[in-house]
Amino acid sequence: MLNTHQYWALPDGISEALPDEAEALEQLRRRLLDLYATWGYRLVMPPLVEFMESLRTGHGTHLDVQTFKLTDQLTGRMMGVRADMTPQIARIDAHKLQTEQPNRLCYIGSVLRTRSFHDGSRSPLQVGAELFGHAGLDSDFEVISLLLETLTHCQIPDLLLDIGHVGIFRSLARAAGLDAAQESHFYDMLVRKSLPEIDAWLVTANLPADISVCLQQLPRLNGAVDVLDQAAALFANAPSDVQDALTYLRTLTTRVAAHFPTYKIHVDLAELSGYDYHTGIVYGVYTSGMGREVARGGRYDGIGEAFGRTRPATGFSTDLRTLATFALPQQQRAGNTSIFAPAVQDAALEQLIRTLRSQQQRVIRALDGQTHDAAALGCSQHIIQQDGHWNVVAV
Amino acid sequence: MLNTHQYWALPDGISEALPDEAEALEQLRRRLLDLYATWGYRLVMPPLVEFMESLRTGHGTHLDVQTFKLTDQLTGRMMGVRADMTPQIARIDAHKLQTEQPNRLCYIGSVLRTRSFHDGSRSPLQVGAELFGHAGLDSDFEVISLLLETLTHCQIPDLLLDIGHVGIFRSLARAAGLDAAQESHFYDMLVRKSLPEIDAWLVTANLPADISVCLQQLPRLNGAVDVLDQAAALFANAPSDVQDALTYLRTLTTRVAAHFPTYKIHVDLAELSGYDYHTGIVYGVYTSGMGREVARGGRYDGIGEAFGRTRPATGFSTDLRTLATFALPQQQRAGNTSIFAPAVQDAALEQLIRTLRSQQQRVIRALDGQTHDAAALGCSQHIIQQDGHWNVVAV
Repeated sequence: MLNTHQYWALPDGISEALPDEAEALEQLRRRLLDLYATWGYRLVMPPLVEFMESLRTGHGTHLDVQTFKLTDQLTGRMMGVRADMTPQIARIDAHKLQTEQPNRLCYIGSVLRTRSFHDGSRSPLQVGAELFGHAGLDSDFEVISLLLETLTHCQIPDLLLDIGHVGIFRSLARAAGLDAAQESHFYDMLVRKSLPEIDAWLVTANLPADISVCLQQLPRLNGAVDVLDQAAALFANAPSDVQDALTYLRTLTTRVAAHFPTYKIHVDLAELSGYDYHTGIVYGVYTSGMGREVARGGRYDGIGEAFGRTRPATGFSTDLRTLATFALPQQQRAGNTSIFAPAVQDAALEQLIRTLRSQQQRVIRALDGQTHDAAALGCSQHIIQQDGHWNVVAV
Repeated sequence: MLNTHQYWALPDGISEALPDEAEALEQLRRRLLDLYATWGYRLVMPPLVEFMESLRTGHGTHLDVQTFKLTDQLTGRMMGVRADMTPQIARIDAHKLQTEQPNRLCYIGSVLRTRSFHDGSRSPLQVGAELFGHAGLDSDFEVISLLLETLTHCQIPDLLLDIGHVGIFRSLARAAGLDAAQESHFYDMLVRKSLPEIDAWLVTANLPADISVCLQQLPRLNGAVDVLDQAAALFANAPSDVQDALTYLRTLTTRVAAHFPTYKIHVDLAELSGYDYHTGIVYGVYTSGMGREVARGGRYDGIGEAFGRTRPATGFSTDLRTLATFALPQQQRAGNTSIFAPAVQDAALEQLIRTLRSQQQRVIRALDGQTHDAAALGCSQHIIQQDGHWNVVAV
């Protein structure tokens, strides 16, 4: 038999929000969705579960492992609880909102993962924005700007944008003739930034000398923006898409630096965290004192292909709970002006309560037999009868 | 191989909301949560998944069958995706918010069910309110009032409150000496209102004559409030809690009728839909032209017992999507005043865009290479340069 403790303990990485936190989350939710609306991002609400075929997109292996599977009792087919809403938004763009114009969408909702990333939650409240139908700097810049605006809004200090471009590693791997298993192995070493392992592997791999040097330097190319100059020199003989990616990163980071001078920018050419479906720039945003990223994003052109329509796409996502830990606590809605009302059945009293509530005042009604303890209910005022009239007075 | 159609089709009973619907849902969500706040109901956000022991409460068989099970990879224990948030709120009241005062909580979130009820959704956006710590008329009346206020707010026409009291059947079953299997079988016949089956079963059951008549009449006791008078006469010799339940229903319906004169009230003593965990009054609210109920609720004292703390509890829940089909479509937030801005990089233009957005205006920025088609993006105005100044003018 389980004891009562075990009845109410939550699984690891699963949390709930009690009133103070829940109301702060709700306020932040509204402020962010309102911000996204002013930038032209329209809200969509993708479903909690879908068939696995819809959730599996792009390379997707990592996402697949993170997805809880369920059997649909109606069809016997496998469904998954969403572990990431981005592929769902891409499906909606591809199928439900067919337009030749760029499409701006935003979303918020709980996702569920089999295991947590970096000691984080297994069920973040994912919030994000995606821009479909435009390939190029303007859309990447718009989405990064909206993300930085979001973080500024939450008053997160000491922000660092860590940016890379998955096209660089992809091109080098192709030029080196790596097969899928080799690319995956090298990717794994890169993500872990395991320099000795990479060096040892390259010694045995017998690749052309010039490309071998490029792969060896890749994990070392991170730091301030001038890393891009070093990279341009080192990769002078690499395929032209590597050069193009470096130029792209230089133009983009220059523009971000001009518009957001208080943000630090860090370039990391081995930054590949979104490699599952990303195709262009990838980035994470960090703040001092937090081991994992605050938000992440990137370009993922072609994700809609599985849904029969390829569109360029770029977007970011973050976790509302993470943001809320930074956002200054707002004054509770009507929290300090709660009014305690007696249980008496009286038409004039009912009318007064109705009027107060319609003015967004919080009125808590006494219940028959309840001791009058306005303070315990957080009420600084109460309604009492004076000379035949009902009046709101301080407790 | 599946064709692309199958990649994007959603499972039966699972839906998503595209921008117009999603924004209407978001507006309604805010209006309802604000309404609940003015009545003193504080928001909580229970988790999407919990261990099955926490989700299984009260009788709970029905809820158990409706719950999708998942294996927690960290512990090997069984978790469930919430199929109903009410037991979660009871757990929060019992453990997280220990107060001797009455506790008012509200919530909104997606739930997931293995099968739909009455052709409805398998993943409603459940919204509801619960009042803990008070046993009696005032709390039942407050919660019903808040529900009816919610439905009035959504402009749902022709509302009918269909109310019963599970204590009546429970008392009669106990007085008749039915064992668990018999009670469950009779319950099943009652819910299906299968009069011939009930009559036949009673003939063979060999119960005392007076109690047999009571059980036989139970499914026939439904209609306008005067059914309560018929019942009082018929049940004159039944246990005293049956009489008490009838008196309770009479007082409560009289009070509801006085405060909400436009609502029809229907009494149904075989109304037991919430029998899984309800202990007192149970009700559903219906509107003409919709086969299933719009909302339901009732009293469920003692649900917190599994969590080590028994408190009286009463509450209602409904589905935001169902409500939104009735709520008159609100004007889209800034929808008609969207402004199209050129892609040009210019400090004065950036400043104007920032100002407009801070005034809650929606500004959609052109992207490099994008044909200027403000109308296709829903913009009735655009920003153009005139005499060296950036101005907002009609398209």
